[in-house]
Amino acid sequence: MRIGLDVGGTKTDAVAVTAAGEIAARVRLATAWGPEGVVRTIVDAVAALGAEPAVAGAAPASIGIGMPGQVAPGGTRVLHAVNLGVDELDLAAALGSRPGIGRVRIENDVKAAALGAYALRGRPGSMAYLNLGTGVAAGFVFPSTDSGRRDGELWRGARGTAGEVGHISVDPGGPLCRCGQHGCIEAFAGGAAVAERWGRPGALPVRDVFDAADAGDPDAAALRAGLAHGVAAAVRVLVLTADVDVVVLGGGVSGLGERLGADVRRTLRASASASAFLRSLRLDERIDLLPPASPAAALGAALIGASLEAEEVLPRG
Amino acid sequence: MRIGLDVGGTKTDAVAVTAAGEIAARVRLATAWGPEGVVRTIVDAVAALGAEPAVAGAAPASIGIGMPGQVAPGGTRVLHAVNLGVDELDLAAALGSRPGIGRVRIENDVKAAALGAYALRGRPGSMAYLNLGTGVAAGFVFPSTDSGRRDGELWRGARGTAGEVGHISVDPGGPLCRCGQHGCIEAFAGGAAVAERWGRPGALPVRDVFDAADAGDPDAAALRAGLAHGVAAAVRVLVLTADVDVVVLGGGVSGLGERLGADVRRTLRASASASAFLRSLRLDERIDLLPPASPAAALGAALIGASLEAEEVLPRG
Repeated sequence: MRIGLDVGGTKTDAVAVTAAGEIAARVRLATAWGPEGVVRTIVDAVAALGAEPAVAGAAPASIGIGMPGQVAPGGTRVLHAVNLGVDELDLAAALGSRPGIGRVRIENDVKAAALGAYALRGRPGSMAYLNLGTGVAAGFVFPSTDSGRRDGELWRGARGTAGEVGHISVDPGGPLCRCGQHGCIEAFAGGAAVAERWGRPGALPVRDVFDAADAGDPDAAALRAGLAHGVAAAVRVLVLTADVDVVVLGGGVSGLGERLGADVRRTLRASASASAFLRSLRLDERIDLLPPASPAAALGAALIGASLEAEEVLPRG
Repeated sequence: MRIGLDVGGTKTDAVAVTAAGEIAARVRLATAWGPEGVVRTIVDAVAALGAEPAVAGAAPASIGIGMPGQVAPGGTRVLHAVNLGVDELDLAAALGSRPGIGRVRIENDVKAAALGAYALRGRPGSMAYLNLGTGVAAGFVFPSTDSGRRDGELWRGARGTAGEVGHISVDPGGPLCRCGQHGCIEAFAGGAAVAERWGRPGALPVRDVFDAADAGDPDAAALRAGLAHGVAAAVRVLVLTADVDVVVLGGGVSGLGERLGADVRRTLRASASASAFLRSLRLDERIDLLPPASPAAALGAALIGASLEAEEVLPRG
């Protein structure tokens, strides 16, 4: 059984995946704060999966972990996972001696979700996964070059930063981004940026913005239009630059579902109405939403962890 | 000997390349107008190469042709090559019966130049080639997955349109682009767009704009700053989205050399001064200019044509 974890800022999603790629068990826990809290959460999640009837205490063949932060080369150390209270954490060192936990591989959570979303879709072609969470970033999955396999391959780029579309400026007169530029896609469409500009208390500020816009609040309507504008700009960047077949929207903000999807499609159609070139790309038909509570990130982490098994049977060079 | 041609709107560049990838001979001719003119130019160029001492009349092993237009799947038919006066041309059909010319493969000229520029650089890593000509478009080359080879592989995307960064809008208040959008990268940095907004006669309008800006003309200074702004935006899009190691600037406008290079580096440094995130990417150190009169596009076409040889020895399935 392959274990995959998506360690998020509030919740950790954990799945046990069969060799055939099916999810056999799934548990969700609250994520504890800081390096020790994260390690304890991972240990607890693996134990909780082991207690599931479908897993029945079998030792995991591999463990993959998606984390919101930068993953150092080698795939065992995470840096700057600020939402977890972690500045640096070597998970291989911290987990290696725990009973029932073997080698682990970490991946950035957006990249893990991209791989998992591709597997869940089960369709050929290329895909960008656009994560609309606190920030905005994308992951790319291309069909496996091994034609015998149906799964995809993550495309990381030269320095592992492919898909950082959140910090492309699309309006020099746009809002100031926390990165220092003006009019970044993330300044329009990032959950944190929208919440900050909305500035009113509430557990789900982006949902509050949508509700207030529906109720006629002009500030909310402007923020909501800006969000759709930012997402549409990201879709155009992803398709025009990387020419992917489809852009799948995921992340916390995508929990708004078709309220967001309809806004984005309308914005894409409006920009296409002025441009035959954009019309020819049919961008509004090339976006898709990840279903609510999708296990994409945990599943993708399990698939990434499974690559450890292949390495173990290879002779060392 | 492998033949490669870059059929441009005014000139055709032709090279004969050895099996080791060295350029053995090179000729340049004026391109004749329209489908018949283009076919005649290609036949003349191949004959002129054959008359070069290094080629000595040997029949070409393969012919690859870079064309400014859309290449239909199959690599023998070009569409919408407006700069050549060609709406549609099946080069395989038009050239197949000519003596001394065997099978041909066509590729979009920007993609051919990308592959050739990568081969000429001879360095590992990933590269985007940003063509600054009448329009603006990019090609991507990634290291060959066959580790025994030093050359790169073109990355075409799902529908062959990867790298269409010219029509990404980076300023909703920017100039109207011929594609119908406002503030496209091409509306700032395309040679045709700059010439149209400059609006004064001259064979080299972009050079005139640079000269007039140096002489203190405020309109020219604004156009020149806009051009650097557009190129810098394209570099940011290419690196942030595709995470390439280097962006090589080529095409007619890049003939301005370091006058353009210095402007673009200054613009990239200015945007980085406000953003620690952009600073960390060191974009100003990741751009490079194709040398003047580089044979990159013709060489890349020859490399693409050479792929025909490999196909011929494969059994048909």
